[in-house]
Amino acid sequence: MDQETVGNIVLLAIVTLISVVQNGFFAHKVEHESKTQNGRSFQRTGTLAFERVYTAKGSRESASQTLCMREVRRSQNCVDAYPTFLVVLWSAGLLCSQVPAAFAGLMYLFVRQKYFVGYLGERTQSTPGYIFGKRIILFLFLMSLAGIFNYYLIFFFGSDFENYIKTVTTTVSPLLLIP
Amino acid sequence: MDQETVGNIVLLAIVTLISVVQNGFFAHKVEHESKTQNGRSFQRTGTLAFERVYTAKGSRESASQTLCMREVRRSQNCVDAYPTFLVVLWSAGLLCSQVPAAFAGLMYLFVRQKYFVGYLGERTQSTPGYIFGKRIILFLFLMSLAGIFNYYLIFFFGSDFENYIKTVTTTVSPLLLIP
Amino acid sequence: MDQETVGNIVLLAIVTLISVVQNGFFAHKVEHESKTQNGRSFQRTGTLAFERVYTAKGSRESASQTLCMREVRRSQNCVDAYPTFLVVLWSAGLLCSQVPAAFAGLMYLFVRQKYFVGYLGERTQSTPGYIFGKRIILFLFLMSLAGIFNYYLIFFFGSDFENYIKTVTTTVSPLLLIP
Repeated sequence: MDQETVGNIVLLAIVTLISVVQNGFFAHKVEHESKTQNGRSFQRTGTLAFERVYTAKGSRESASQTLCMREVRRSQNCVDAYPTFLVVLWSAGLLCSQVPAAFAGLMYLFVRQKYFVGYLGERTQSTPGYIFGKRIILFLFLMSLAGIFNYYLIFFFGSDFENYIKTVTTTVSPLLLIP
Repeated sequence: MDQETVGNIVLLAIVTLISVVQNGFFAHKVEHESKTQNGRSFQRTGTLAFERVYTAKGSRESASQTLCMREVRRSQNCVDAYPTFLVVLWSAGLLCSQVPAAFAGLMYLFVRQKYFVGYLGERTQSTPGYIFGKRIILFLFLMSLAGIFNYYLIFFFGSDFENYIKTVTTTVSPLLLIP
Repeated sequence: MDQETVGNIVLLAIVTLISVVQNGFFAHKVEHESKTQNGRSFQRTGTLAFERVYTAKGSRESASQTLCMREVRRSQNCVDAYPTFLVVLWSAGLLCSQVPAAFAGLMYLFVRQKYFVGYLGERTQSTPGYIFGKRIILFLFLMSLAGIFNYYLIFFFGSDFENYIKTVTTTVSPLLLIP
């Protein structure tokens, strides 16, 4: 691709590559946990493999298994939401404006990291919320909608609000920093 | 991006955004169900959290848990098939023809919605089929193949069947409406 | 899209379509296994459907259920890694060089196939590794990084190493064939 086209997507590509690194981190963490878990159970009980994994009965294994299961579930939730995130990130960046979209994407990656590792110490919150980063996904979604809306405004009325929309989104995006 | 390029992808982008809304609906439904389920079990039995989730023994909880589990599984199947759907939607739309691809994508979203909510009332079909919307995915896949084939025809023989392919796909696509 | 633009992505599109076929094969395999499993259990025990699926107690069903569960887990791991693979494949192909990226993508599909069907006969390895094809993903990731790095080199210093990077990646990519 030529220099100009790459310039239109380079920030989005960087955010996407960071998210790939994060995916790798999650996968590594889950693999590590599941290996540790399996090794420990094997030494202690020596039952068949599928029993270790699919029945969780023993009271002594409960605590560590709960931790492991929670990590697996959280990683699963992250994996489930990943295609949706990519879709809104790229459609917001391509249809509307690149810089705020990349910034919101970066925020989402922070929220995801916090969702995955932040509550590892707690015992009580055993079933983590299924959805996280709703506000950021919504922001990116609205940006995409604004881009499509603008396209049809140009198409039918010939009036271009692109710069106006870009200014608004760039101004609004720092609000995502508010927790 | 300039107006013309956006015009080539705007319908695909709209279908994709609708699918994002649907993903959000599924995630919301699953979170809601799992919360209700957890709350009810907690009041009744008060066991440890992981037991509630990973063993399904009690006969009274069976019916509602089966419902919940089915919904979770169905949502999981939808999530699993989502990247594949996006890939064939966009490659069919970009390599071949936009309008029939977007139409087929819309059909797929309807089928997915029906797959998720349609059989909620039934008790018998406890393990839903893993695959749904095969015909639509196949249609989009064949459109992509036709696009690639056409590229190599132009490349090697210089003969362009693009308009012919576009006419055929546009004519064939309403057949997807037949259940 | 015009002929030249399609030429820039056609190999990536072909690899992606092959991966779609493979996804379909995995989904078919899982559906088939789960149906066989359900059918056999039903004839033998006749318990409620959710018990069959969510408790794995009987010693005679163990072996086949372990097999089935392993297949499901493996397919799940493939599905989980799929968006990440697509992202690095396309960013490596678009930002850096198409031919080595498509070649590495093809290698990844071979590794994935081997991961899914290769060890079906073994009984011992009951919990398959969570991650596979690390080296190929890393190669594609480094290609994307090189592409982004090159963009900023042109942007800030005006020096273009694109041909150099393309030669290096094309030379290095056959090394992925070494197991």
